[in-house]
Parts: sequence; structure tokens; C-alpha cells
Amino acid sequence: MKYMKKSFDGLLPYHSKLITDGIILNANESPILPPSKVIEEAKKEILNIEFNRYPDMDEEILDKAIAKKFGIKRENVTVGVGSDELLDVLFRAVLEKDDIVLGFMPSFSMYQVFSKLQNAKYIPVLGNEFNIFNVDDMISKIKEYNPKLVLICSPNNPTGQYFTKDEVIKIIESTNAMIALDLAYIDFAKEDYTTIALNYDNVISFRTFSKAMALPSIRVGYAISKKENIDMLDAIKAPYSVTTISQIIATIAINNFDLYKGQIKMIINERERLYKELINLKINAYKSEANFIYCIMDDKLNDALLKNKIYIRKFKSNIYRITVGSSYENDKLIEVLKNETK
Amino acid sequence: MKYMKKSFDGLLPYHSKLITDGIILNANESPILPPSKVIEEAKKEILNIEFNRYPDMDEEILDKAIAKKFGIKRENVTVGVGSDELLDVLFRAVLEKDDIVLGFMPSFSMYQVFSKLQNAKYIPVLGNEFNIFNVDDMISKIKEYNPKLVLICSPNNPTGQYFTKDEVIKIIESTNAMIALDLAYIDFAKEDYTTIALNYDNVISFRTFSKAMALPSIRVGYAISKKENIDMLDAIKAPYSVTTISQIIATIAINNFDLYKGQIKMIINERERLYKELINLKINAYKSEANFIYCIMDDKLNDALLKNKIYIRKFKSNIYRITVGSSYENDKLIEVLKNETK
Repeated sequence: MKYMKKSFDGLLPYHSKLITDGIILNANESPILPPSKVIEEAKKEILNIEFNRYPDMDEEILDKAIAKKFGIKRENVTVGVGSDELLDVLFRAVLEKDDIVLGFMPSFSMYQVFSKLQNAKYIPVLGNEFNIFNVDDMISKIKEYNPKLVLICSPNNPTGQYFTKDEVIKIIESTNAMIALDLAYIDFAKEDYTTIALNYDNVISFRTFSKAMALPSIRVGYAISKKENIDMLDAIKAPYSVTTISQIIATIAINNFDLYKGQIKMIINERERLYKELINLKINAYKSEANFIYCIMDDKLNDALLKNKIYIRKFKSNIYRITVGSSYENDKLIEVLKNETK
Repeated sequence: MKYMKKSFDGLLPYHSKLITDGIILNANESPILPPSKVIEEAKKEILNIEFNRYPDMDEEILDKAIAKKFGIKRENVTVGVGSDELLDVLFRAVLEKDDIVLGFMPSFSMYQVFSKLQNAKYIPVLGNEFNIFNVDDMISKIKEYNPKLVLICSPNNPTGQYFTKDEVIKIIESTNAMIALDLAYIDFAKEDYTTIALNYDNVISFRTFSKAMALPSIRVGYAISKKENIDMLDAIKAPYSVTTISQIIATIAINNFDLYKGQIKMIINERERLYKELINLKINAYKSEANFIYCIMDDKLNDALLKNKIYIRKFKSNIYRITVGSSYENDKLIEVLKNETK
């Protein structure tokens, strides 16, 4: 690509055909729609939109709804096009060329893309032979590399490992580096500690409506931090990035968070059931506190799933991530795997 | 902001309260909703959305609809969160620190922000004493500065000046620099030359649904260029940035472009009427081929408008941009200005 700057060599367009037919367990989406009250209110509100006006660039109503849910101030919240946009904005805000970013590996793959876009260096912190991460390893890497930015994804995508509040605090208190606490899947885990970001100068929590809130279609994420860090994100973030309709639907969803509790519980129960079934089938499945299960399994099992139009995420040969589906979808998946491992 | 990198000093969060009451002529929005068929189809389609699924990251249906409208191939199109996202992506793709960006001044203010975000230098090409730009001045600045990126906004925001196809071609053929041809307002001008981008290696045309298509609420823009440049944008652009609903509504709108012709004509007629009225009032109004008029006028006129809840865009003391409103809105504006200049 003649006009692309040299330092971006290796960045390529990524295309992936939308799958609409079959059992889709490859994107950590919710198997069920948001609660019907959310959908009904959203459809009613959409009828009254002034389509010919820009969205509220300050996202006032949505910011306030998020702040209310966490019992914090509006000045500690900002929203973006998924947590992706806000993470990218953070990378842009703090990283100069050749700065060091530390994160677990494997973790959310976009961290490496965002690093590359800043010409920063992503240094991976590896797990043990079972891909289990140890926070003390992270802390010693922090001392060794003096990073500008540290990423903690909890529960970690794609391995599912959850870091306790105490573990996270231990990392935070070991450094003055900026810590991005990516809590995309925290609603499926033991404890939601989003607001610990407000106890420190160097922590931003990132959340999304795409997972437990079952709304990836609307592309809304948010960040929670001290005002100075929120101001920093707002200074870099594009104005008007979140559409009017997305702001409205996200507001309705978070105002009705209690209605989600049942479906979150259902997904957690299905996750535990699916995990046991996979283990029974002698598949090397990882214990997870998210809505997916990381597996090391034979590629021929995936071939059998594909033949049955069941789509899971393949990272490389024998390395997979299965999103927890509905009980029907999980049954189908298990049935195919059972037949294949007989 | 302790964690923001030094090179971003001076970037500050910008907040602006959403105005919902009064006559809003400050954001170059359409005074009328999209054609009712577009709205009705959109509302119908929204009922069937799978809210719990990610948008199509390839925007296949929308890309194809845009390609069809221009009689080009899908590989020559990509879409983003307004043309803003795509412009930002282009700046990121081509600019290294200290690279030169050339553009007219005044022009769309985000060009300078996007330059700053890359630590690039924005060199302004100024107009004559009446703020009229000459393409030969642009060409001599190109020879003088050897820029990486040249911006042509036609019609130019905020001055309204339209560059003819021949003028634009003259600039393009004077350089190998990447040319961003921002045609946000071209539907209000004499000729739409979006597809000239396909005749050159170094040109990308940027378009938006926010102006003539009357859909700023959905935040969709698109770029048209040779495949290699589209691939470059797609390599940098965030996946899934355009929401499912926005993709659906934009597709319906562009498939029904003919229905917009009446309202575009109406806005052009109102623009001409408003221009004459302003000149009659001895206000220094600029001839425009967009949906706004640039004015040099006394601040006390704006004070009178504000008192009547009529909002126009103030750039600095005595420098304003008035969006062309509905005939009712324009009447109200003229009435207040008349009373004040009596």
C-alpha cells in the first residue's frame, strides 16, 4: 500500500463474512435478546427520534444513567463506540513511539493492534504451562520494563481467567503506569470491581454493552475513572461518535440492569454445565468466569462442528474459544462433539 | 493531565450542551427529516434486528448500495462513523510525526485536530481579502512544502466556496501527495464529482449521510477510492464501528436517493433567498454552494438572534456561519435581523 506509512507495514485489511445461519458461538455474543422491556421501550423511543439532528456529543443522559448505576459522579464516566474506541483513545493519549505496553498473552487481540497503531511495543506476560497467569509475574515484568501502559483483562479473553480484586489492587499498587482494566466480561464473574478505578490516579475501567447487556449491535462501551483521566479521553475522542439511537437504547438497558440478572445467571449455569460436559469428553477445557470457554482440542472436532453449522472461534490449530450459547445450542454442540469423540 | 503525552499538550475536552429548543442553525443539519418512505422503511426494519449480534464488520449490504448508486465496484467503497472516522483513519495511515498537511484556512476545523493527533504540521493556504481561495495558491504551496496530505473541502466548510471539477483535477495532477477530497456538501453544489477519485492513485473522496441525506443521528460516512487506498483505510479502521441500525438506515436512504432530490432543491432555493435577504440587509454574506452561508456581521445581531432562541455558529467575534433552515426558520431569522438593522 503505497501511501501507508512504513511503520504500519504488516497491517492488512481484515474481512470476515457475516454468518447468519447456524449456531454462532464465535463472538462471545449473548444467545438471547435483551429483556423484552428493554426492546419494547427502545422500539417506542426510536419512533420519536429527530433523525436529522446530530447525537448529543456530551451523551448527557447516558453518562448520568451509567453514573447512577455505579453510584458515582457523571464526571467519572465517558462513553464510546464499544470499549474498543475508548481503549484506542487511551493508547493514542498516552503512548509515544517505542513506549512499552504490558499485557497478558493470550489476551484480547486488539491490544496488540492498538499498540502497533502507536508504534509502541507490546510485551507479553505469559502464563504457566496451563496458560494460568500469575500477578507476581506481571509485577516483575512491570519492574523490568517500566511500561507506560498495563492491560488487565478480567475475566481474561480468551482464557477466561478472573483476577480477584485483591490481585488487581496488588498490580495497581506496584506501579505508577497507567492501568487499563478491561472488564468486558465482569458481569459473569464473582465480583464487579469497576469502581476501584476511582481510588487511584492511574486506573481506568472499561466496560461494554456488548456482552452481558446483549447489545453488540449498538456498539456502546464506557470508561470509568477519575475526572482527569476522563477529561483526557474526552480530549482525544471524536465528537458525536455514539449514535442517537445507541445512546437511547444503552440508557434504557442500564436503567433496567436488574432485568438482566436472570439471563446472566442462566449463562453462568450453562457455562458450568458446558465446562463439565467438555471435561467429560476429555477435552482440555479451561475453567472460566466469562461467557466463553477456552479449549485445546483436536481440529477434527471443529471440522465436525462446521459440518453441522456450529461456529466456534479458532485461534490456531487445536486452540479454540467456545461462546456459551443457549441450552439448546450447547446441547447441539455437545451432541456433535460426543459423536466425534466416541 | 498527568498521563497525556507531552506532544498532546493543549488538547482539551470539548463539551457543548445539546440544544433542543429554538431554531437550530448552527450545525449544518437538514431542517427536515429524511423522506417519509425512508423513515417508514427504517422503522419497519428496526423491528427485526438481532440486537444481541455484532454488526456486519464488512458492511456488505451498505457498501454494495453505495457502489450501486455511483456505478462503481464494492471494492472501491468503505464506510465509517461519519466521514470524521474515515478522515482520522487516513491521517493515521499516512502521517508520521512532523509530516506536512496542507489545507485551506478557514476550512473544516477537525483537519487541524486530526493533524495534531498525528503530531503533523497543518500548513494553511489562505484566501484573498474576501476569503476566496485560488487553486494556484494551493499548487504553489504544494511545491513549497512537499506535503504528505492535501485537503480539499468542496464546497468548503465554512466559507461555502465550491471548487469545480477542473480546479480539483488541476490540484490533483500537480502532486503525488495523497489528496483527501471532502465532499460532505457536494449534493448542494453544481456537480458531484465523487468518482474522479477512481481516476487517480492519490485521491480519496469522502462523503457523509449527515448533510443532504439528513441523517446525522446515525453517524455514517463513506470513502471512495482505488482498492489499494480502501484497503489501507480498512487496515487501520476499527472493526464493527458502524452499528447495525445505522447500516440498515443508510442503505435504505441511499437506495432512495431520488426521493431526496426535492428537499435538496428546496434547501438550495432557500439558500439563494437567504443570501439575497442578507445582502439586502447589508450583511457581508458569502456566496455559497453548500447548505450554509458564511457571514461577517456585527456581534449584536447574534445577540438579538440568541434572545429569540435562534442559534447560528459563531467562530469568533463578527464571524458566523448560518445553516440554511426551513423557509419558516429562515423567515424568523431574517425578521430578527431586519428589526436589529433598522
